[in-house]
Amino acid sequence: MQHHTVIDLEKAALARWCNGDPDGFLEISARDVVYFDPFLCARLDGFDQLKAYYDGLRGQINAPRHEMIAPHVQEIGDAAVLTFRFVASGGGDGGQMRWNCTEVYRRQQGQTWRIVQTHWSFTGAQPVPDGN
Amino acid sequence: MQHHTVIDLEKAALARWCNGDPDGFLEISARDVVYFDPFLCARLDGFDQLKAYYDGLRGQINAPRHEMIAPHVQEIGDAAVLTFRFVASGGGDGGQMRWNCTEVYRRQQGQTWRIVQTHWSFTGAQPVPDGN
Repeated sequence: MQHHTVIDLEKAALARWCNGDPDGFLEISARDVVYFDPFLCARLDGFDQLKAYYDGLRGQINAPRHEMIAPHVQEIGDAAVLTFRFVASGGGDGGQMRWNCTEVYRRQQGQTWRIVQTHWSFTGAQPVPDGN
Repeated sequence: MQHHTVIDLEKAALARWCNGDPDGFLEISARDVVYFDPFLCARLDGFDQLKAYYDGLRGQINAPRHEMIAPHVQEIGDAAVLTFRFVASGGGDGGQMRWNCTEVYRRQQGQTWRIVQTHWSFTGAQPVPDGN
């Protein structure tokens, strides 16, 4: 299992996320962060857009059982590209969500890692029919 | 409209891809490339896995009408993070596919840009029900 600081940061933020708290991610996101997920019709550009979106999800997520699968980090100078799969199960009906994720972190002033790009998608997804 | 070499590289590779030719992407992919798309159940790790996958798609793609939407590049030293949406229409029934994409490029020896991470997903996707 590869070890890297950004894997620890990501796991800590995910644990808070899965408990309804988006601030873990906001605290480690850069001002110029960009963001894709399958619920949005376009990319979010910048921290303010991401914060507005996450604020709307505060308290909405409850996935006590979750697992990061096969995290992999590629470092390029002060960039770190983290890719992994993520399986999360809700507290209610036990439905399972399966995700692909890419996080790009940037080391600010050679020290603190911040997310500059997030891309979440479903593992094995079906497109929404055109027009919907 | 932002201009960057990796946008030009990506557009050229996409034009070939949409004509059934995956070699445009293979020619600009690094040995350590990793890859996500919604048809796969896991990440592909490394050029050989990507080539085997692309070889199976050779001649299968035909999307004469396609458009890159809102390309955005974040440079971090010798890394460039390209994000965009992509809309492609087939030559037959005219069905439209809508994509989110993140490409991370690395500048090799400060000169040639190579893809080290690709993440394709559907814009507005529905997850496959668990168990399928």
